[in-house]
Amino acid sequence: MEAKSPNESRTTLTDLVLPSETNPLNNLFGGELLARMDRAASIAARRHSRRIVVTASVNHVAFNKAIPLGSVVTVEAAVSRAFKSSMEIFIDVWVEDRESGRRTKANEAIYTFVAVDETGTPIQIPPLEPETDLEKERYEAALRRKQLSLVLAGKMKPKDATELKALFEE
Amino acid sequence: MEAKSPNESRTTLTDLVLPSETNPLNNLFGGELLARMDRAASIAARRHSRRIVVTASVNHVAFNKAIPLGSVVTVEAAVSRAFKSSMEIFIDVWVEDRESGRRTKANEAIYTFVAVDETGTPIQIPPLEPETDLEKERYEAALRRKQLSLVLAGKMKPKDATELKALFEE
Amino acid sequence: MEAKSPNESRTTLTDLVLPSETNPLNNLFGGELLARMDRAASIAARRHSRRIVVTASVNHVAFNKAIPLGSVVTVEAAVSRAFKSSMEIFIDVWVEDRESGRRTKANEAIYTFVAVDETGTPIQIPPLEPETDLEKERYEAALRRKQLSLVLAGKMKPKDATELKALFEE
Amino acid sequence: MEAKSPNESRTTLTDLVLPSETNPLNNLFGGELLARMDRAASIAARRHSRRIVVTASVNHVAFNKAIPLGSVVTVEAAVSRAFKSSMEIFIDVWVEDRESGRRTKANEAIYTFVAVDETGTPIQIPPLEPETDLEKERYEAALRRKQLSLVLAGKMKPKDATELKALFEE
Amino acid sequence: MEAKSPNESRTTLTDLVLPSETNPLNNLFGGELLARMDRAASIAARRHSRRIVVTASVNHVAFNKAIPLGSVVTVEAAVSRAFKSSMEIFIDVWVEDRESGRRTKANEAIYTFVAVDETGTPIQIPPLEPETDLEKERYEAALRRKQLSLVLAGKMKPKDATELKALFEE
Amino acid sequence: MEAKSPNESRTTLTDLVLPSETNPLNNLFGGELLARMDRAASIAARRHSRRIVVTASVNHVAFNKAIPLGSVVTVEAAVSRAFKSSMEIFIDVWVEDRESGRRTKANEAIYTFVAVDETGTPIQIPPLEPETDLEKERYEAALRRKQLSLVLAGKMKPKDATELKALFEE
Repeated sequence: MEAKSPNESRTTLTDLVLPSETNPLNNLFGGELLARMDRAASIAARRHSRRIVVTASVNHVAFNKAIPLGSVVTVEAAVSRAFKSSMEIFIDVWVEDRESGRRTKANEAIYTFVAVDETGTPIQIPPLEPETDLEKERYEAALRRKQLSLVLAGKMKPKDATELKALFEE
Repeated sequence: MEAKSPNESRTTLTDLVLPSETNPLNNLFGGELLARMDRAASIAARRHSRRIVVTASVNHVAFNKAIPLGSVVTVEAAVSRAFKSSMEIFIDVWVEDRESGRRTKANEAIYTFVAVDETGTPIQIPPLEPETDLEKERYEAALRRKQLSLVLAGKMKPKDATELKALFEE
Repeated sequence: MEAKSPNESRTTLTDLVLPSETNPLNNLFGGELLARMDRAASIAARRHSRRIVVTASVNHVAFNKAIPLGSVVTVEAAVSRAFKSSMEIFIDVWVEDRESGRRTKANEAIYTFVAVDETGTPIQIPPLEPETDLEKERYEAALRRKQLSLVLAGKMKPKDATELKALFEE
Repeated sequence: MEAKSPNESRTTLTDLVLPSETNPLNNLFGGELLARMDRAASIAARRHSRRIVVTASVNHVAFNKAIPLGSVVTVEAAVSRAFKSSMEIFIDVWVEDRESGRRTKANEAIYTFVAVDETGTPIQIPPLEPETDLEKERYEAALRRKQLSLVLAGKMKPKDATELKALFEE
Repeated sequence: MEAKSPNESRTTLTDLVLPSETNPLNNLFGGELLARMDRAASIAARRHSRRIVVTASVNHVAFNKAIPLGSVVTVEAAVSRAFKSSMEIFIDVWVEDRESGRRTKANEAIYTFVAVDETGTPIQIPPLEPETDLEKERYEAALRRKQLSLVLAGKMKPKDATELKALFEE
Repeated sequence: MEAKSPNESRTTLTDLVLPSETNPLNNLFGGELLARMDRAASIAARRHSRRIVVTASVNHVAFNKAIPLGSVVTVEAAVSRAFKSSMEIFIDVWVEDRESGRRTKANEAIYTFVAVDETGTPIQIPPLEPETDLEKERYEAALRRKQLSLVLAGKMKPKDATELKALFEE
């Protein structure tokens, strides 16, 4: 299978924040943003694999910045690393101020998807070849995140997570 | 006011076709596509004008290609010409085949938006400066469309719509 | 096939404007109105043809009047002319003031639908026989609109659109 | 206050049954039909009173006929009797078969609404003057229903519900 | 078939009141509450019968208490009596004040569901055995309600509704 | 401020999986489950704090089990530890098989919410006092998770995360 670049899966979902999606402070519900990110990420995963894809996990997500009613929100997702049948998708969320037109980073998130056939069985996917510096950096970090995920799931012993362990040994 | 390029307002809304949006043939409802195009176009208009914007009109839209359930649809909108307070937005709609990954053009549409202040009064906006050949072509055609629109609304006499009239005088 | 009157397909959809359907000025989104009109028009087309129907095109629509949150909106659709397998649907939109009870015209729109069989192939439909003066007037105009539509799609030469051409030759 | 006829409040909401509104047998959810009837009835109550209206109660509703996915459903509501500040709304629900075009009665329901001012306080409304035989019959029955409602709420003793009691004294 | 207790079908649906569900006084629409109660009741009916279930009827429902935007609403449903293939479901609705944390009763409602097989034919279900005093009281009252329902539907003569008739004969 | 038990914030949201919430394999979208968990968790956080609450972060979530269309899903959320103004909410997701009635665990998730005043400023909340063994275990683990979260955010040095570090030093 031929490798693909992150650009081939890059997916942009720009949309407004509507009243039915906001909390009592008139900001976008965290849950609604998680759902939008899942939709964009699933399309990126599908573009990379050309298969049916299902959400396997969501990494830690921090909501650092409130997104007010009426904002324009851009969710940008691209595959950051492909494993055998699973893909890590890196998602950047931007919010735009209407008057200044300035775009500020609101969130980052990392979802993992698995490509499956019609019966739901995992199936092999093409590798990813990062191109830019940022893509390469995210590609490297994806391996450490996979180790952490296996450790947390009890499928890998902490002492075997070599890359991850290094973080705690300075 | 400084001119802006179509790129500064270009807006991409990529999303799935869900079961609640399809007709008995399992294709996307025309009305649902019109609504998505309106959302993308309104964001493009807002990006160009940095104002509150309201839909003023929709040009003739033809639905040439059915868009099946589960498709990935990309709606791309950009300002094609700016008048005093109104903007023409040109919208291209693409559909992707999951297996081949091929994107095919499904629709084109043209919406007009007006920029207004908080009281709803029209307000002046920056001019548009087209850059690519396609942008220049759409920019020229926008004037003829505006004439047609004025003629249809009875606000301009057919004989004064010079550019439009030429079409029928070969 | 026996002719039908516009009354046999007339469809009324009266509903409220809810907060999730309004823009920052608290008026109904243009896109939401386009979607409601599509639903009412598709029912009218289905009543005339008793077939599955799909949206073929939308004529120029002008949004002349803002429709505020909480309004009662009535969308009334009826077939205005039937061709071989396509139908033109004329749609009138009314808004009601709660206190005075006065209904004012908010919009007009014209959609075209095609009747198809289960495989999506166009299929013949009954002719329309207009009854009132307004219905007759809309019936006549439908032919000119069809010519304009064919010209714009490049399927008819402008000089052959006899009825339409006359408009520009005074 | 001048009396109004049921026709002045008659409200028609014709719409399709969509996939997101159906149960595992592919029929319209009872709860979704109750919600559509509430919307149509609230508009009828508002048209009669020209006030803000709130749902006060729903009478016994029987779901005798399943309404399949893709059906065209017509909900027709009109005020059947006006009391001091409350109104009884009678609702008829029709379903249409696409192929034969035949409309069959699917449901009847009776909702009560109260007209209120901006603070939520009940406020006087115009009387209703029924015109057709059916309207007169529903008008008469509305009084018995109001008595039953008061009895069930413990606000009237069964023996004082003269009209209602008669039903059980054959 | 073994009897089940109301606890085995008890279903709790706690959720927020969102802006798209409120009327002009910013209170929950009656129709939306009816739909939520139908969802909770259908799950309770399904838990008791382990079958596909369809709404058969809704008893008189009174809306005594407005439920404001942003409230936390708890809908609690449990089977109150099982007949041959139909079940009565008793529903209690509670609203919580955010600051005091106090829960107050907002509504009661009674829905009837029928258990059916894949073809929609009614099918036998287990009996219900009430346990607490409240459950026993509701169980007894369910019989009177069934009689009233049959009388209203013209399927039982008022004079044969022995239990119900007693109410009017003091 | 008086301590509260997890029971005082426990929130249950039982609901069906509808067609508009499923992917091409007819299973619940991951994003939709994330949104439901956010709604249940926000209610639990509000019940503990009696304040406006906003989502601060979501821990790693694994989707181990597909949840098919038509399932009954129960999302149960309760505060697992309270810090100064933030709360960790532990969420258990259960799916029920209609025929056997068996409930199986589908997911676990951990969300963090912050209590704020009307201006969005964090505000002090009551401590949590766990009661059962499971509650105590989750209470203890919450501290390690907070350390991990601070490390990942670059706000704590890995070597200072004493509890967390121990995990990697066997």
